[in-house]
Amino acid sequence: MSYQLSCVVCVPRAIWVQPTTNHSSSKSDRAQRIEYLTKIPRSVNLESLQNGYLFPEISMRESEYAQRNPHARLIRLGIGDTTQPIPDIITSAMAEQALALSTAKGYKGYGPEQGNRELRRAIAETLYQDMQVKENEIFVSDGAQCDISRVQMLLDASLSIALQDPTFPGYADSSVIVGRAGRLNAGNGKYKKIVYMECVAENNFFPNLSKTPRTDLIFFCSPNNPTGSAASRQQLEQLVKFAKANGSIIIYDSAYAAFISDESPKSIFEIPGAKEVAIEISSFSKFAGFTGVRLGWTVVPEELLYANGYPVIRDYDRIVCTCFNGASNIVQAGGLACLSPQGFQALKRTMGYYMENAKILVETFESMGLKVYGGKNGPYVWVHFPGLSSWQVFNQFLEKAAVVTIPGIGFGPAGEGYIRVSAFSHRESILEASRRFTKLI
Amino acid sequence: MSYQLSCVVCVPRAIWVQPTTNHSSSKSDRAQRIEYLTKIPRSVNLESLQNGYLFPEISMRESEYAQRNPHARLIRLGIGDTTQPIPDIITSAMAEQALALSTAKGYKGYGPEQGNRELRRAIAETLYQDMQVKENEIFVSDGAQCDISRVQMLLDASLSIALQDPTFPGYADSSVIVGRAGRLNAGNGKYKKIVYMECVAENNFFPNLSKTPRTDLIFFCSPNNPTGSAASRQQLEQLVKFAKANGSIIIYDSAYAAFISDESPKSIFEIPGAKEVAIEISSFSKFAGFTGVRLGWTVVPEELLYANGYPVIRDYDRIVCTCFNGASNIVQAGGLACLSPQGFQALKRTMGYYMENAKILVETFESMGLKVYGGKNGPYVWVHFPGLSSWQVFNQFLEKAAVVTIPGIGFGPAGEGYIRVSAFSHRESILEASRRFTKLI
Repeated sequence: MSYQLSCVVCVPRAIWVQPTTNHSSSKSDRAQRIEYLTKIPRSVNLESLQNGYLFPEISMRESEYAQRNPHARLIRLGIGDTTQPIPDIITSAMAEQALALSTAKGYKGYGPEQGNRELRRAIAETLYQDMQVKENEIFVSDGAQCDISRVQMLLDASLSIALQDPTFPGYADSSVIVGRAGRLNAGNGKYKKIVYMECVAENNFFPNLSKTPRTDLIFFCSPNNPTGSAASRQQLEQLVKFAKANGSIIIYDSAYAAFISDESPKSIFEIPGAKEVAIEISSFSKFAGFTGVRLGWTVVPEELLYANGYPVIRDYDRIVCTCFNGASNIVQAGGLACLSPQGFQALKRTMGYYMENAKILVETFESMGLKVYGGKNGPYVWVHFPGLSSWQVFNQFLEKAAVVTIPGIGFGPAGEGYIRVSAFSHRESILEASRRFTKLI
Repeated sequence: MSYQLSCVVCVPRAIWVQPTTNHSSSKSDRAQRIEYLTKIPRSVNLESLQNGYLFPEISMRESEYAQRNPHARLIRLGIGDTTQPIPDIITSAMAEQALALSTAKGYKGYGPEQGNRELRRAIAETLYQDMQVKENEIFVSDGAQCDISRVQMLLDASLSIALQDPTFPGYADSSVIVGRAGRLNAGNGKYKKIVYMECVAENNFFPNLSKTPRTDLIFFCSPNNPTGSAASRQQLEQLVKFAKANGSIIIYDSAYAAFISDESPKSIFEIPGAKEVAIEISSFSKFAGFTGVRLGWTVVPEELLYANGYPVIRDYDRIVCTCFNGASNIVQAGGLACLSPQGFQALKRTMGYYMENAKILVETFESMGLKVYGGKNGPYVWVHFPGLSSWQVFNQFLEKAAVVTIPGIGFGPAGEGYIRVSAFSHRESILEASRRFTKLI
């Protein structure tokens, strides 16, 4: 839906879209209220941003359904939000740190923007054993989504990019915001300046690099959101070789790496030579249930150099010091507890619970005769419905089973015909959703 | 100091500078190690960023001094970092929220990116009484510095800007990073595309707007960091009128507003009509001692419209949803406690302590026959040393009194001849520093 005001001369490129949040008001309301316009043009980049971020659109359909069906017991397997309590040992560490801030001895002000040394060291030693990642190459943050934007600010807006298709929409959206995506082609749902690397069942969810044109930057998420599929060692070796041959930088998102159950690498830095071509962004959100607590990190290796030999890490350090002020000290204390032997052990049990959920979902969809992917190395199940559009499937599941999923096309054009089902839920919801799905046949 | 590698063809504009952090290694080390360069050019914007961020430079001089004088008792009145414990009522709320995350009932995942409704409402009701600021216009964040960058991402890179001179360096630095500052003129220390609005004793620290050229954006900090001076109601009325006549947007930083002791406005939104021309960024860092805890907010009024009538708030909402994922839920619980009657009362006592420090500093410098500004509406004291350079004064205070301050020129060319002294310290340090300063005469 679009609308415009009689008092405004509409610039053609400014298509007014339905707001996705609660900032709207009726046409007549607004027309009466507007008394003054600044002379500031809207950012060309923000104007290019596709109408409606995926999740608000889903929320809207969900709310509409709930209004029409006030007694339905809705099950939400859409957004990848954790549901299980955080182990005591971790929350106790945060509570203790919070209380210490009320004491003369325990009070702390600004910490290093890059994160507390202890936590940086623990990340290096626990999660990057044998990969020669040093603590000073780790920048602690308030989460992967925030770091994706900081990496976007780091790199020149003129650089070209490639993305997996489908993948997490934040890479494309933040690329649009910094101006490297070009205009949206409404016909195929693709931004004109982005190279989409198709990852579908036919190519085992890994792009055909021999047909992929060179770009300056390559965003790569493994295990991938939404397909739940982790790239193998051999595939990542190909990816590093490809980047190296092209002089590209890989921005590798390993937010789901802790869920990997087979031999697939948990970090791009398991691949020899990757430190010369890759930045890795990761997060405590999913493996530690920190989605609302907010903690992540980014690894920028010293070996990663611009064409003129200048180390990328120095510019990233400037970005972090200028545009960020460090993650909360309370939360960092929690991060440290996550990486203690006891904390990590407790978190493995929670991850096991989610992966058992994923197994139940996989079995359910397989029993329905569907092709199912993911769910083994990542907490998402990716189900194929050939011949149907993914919004059709989404609507069917919502209307007939009162289950919220995510239409695959929300993650890119190649997600058409698929839906993503999240295993981050309570067991009883997963079991009930499975019963409802099975009844649909 | 600059250095370069023999194996690298040095692009002329790429001047290699001494790193400001610990990522450096010796020349021979690096030369041996470099085996591969990507083909990615360094961002033109980051190349334009002035060598050495102020605070790392000060740290370096401080460390050098400490090495030369291992027994000196250094007093740090430089960086504006809080030192007093946070009241129990606030840390208890955070501890309680942390522990609740270990329970099935109390666990929470992602919160709204814009902040929890309760906190947004409390900010609106407590800090924006009678200003018609609505809760949905408040975006809770992890701090003002982070929000400055998000506002920079919001607004088109081609827009022109004006800054107070002197002021917090983050406005200029983040402007450079997004590409709206142009090149640095090494001769006068100014970026070519920035309009510097001189704020010195002669104009009562408020710019002469009749001589200020029109810009699209105006960053304005009040009480200003570093001068400690708050703009009066009449001055802010002039500023709003000026912005309105020019169709500009004011980005108003009120991070120190809670320290105001006279009738100066605590928010730009106390000025009628400001909602049509201003965004306000603020923070819990200073008034609640949250520098390491991380919490802030930004107000984007619904009435603020681009030239084409599109509401700025909708784009800011997209920025927040795409580039940020909300402030920590534990920290937000602390923010809510800060705004409770008891919490706010306790914080007032801490602010009173810092302002008593400021009074001691003002009296000390006045007793030395110096012209002293600030210290009444803000926790910074701004001392004038006509005829001396501010780095000279900095060095004198460091070498002869073992006190770290900040040279005024670090905040802009018009800060030359001044130093900033922070009142955010322990009382005994303030008293000891005062004794040492007095002895210098």
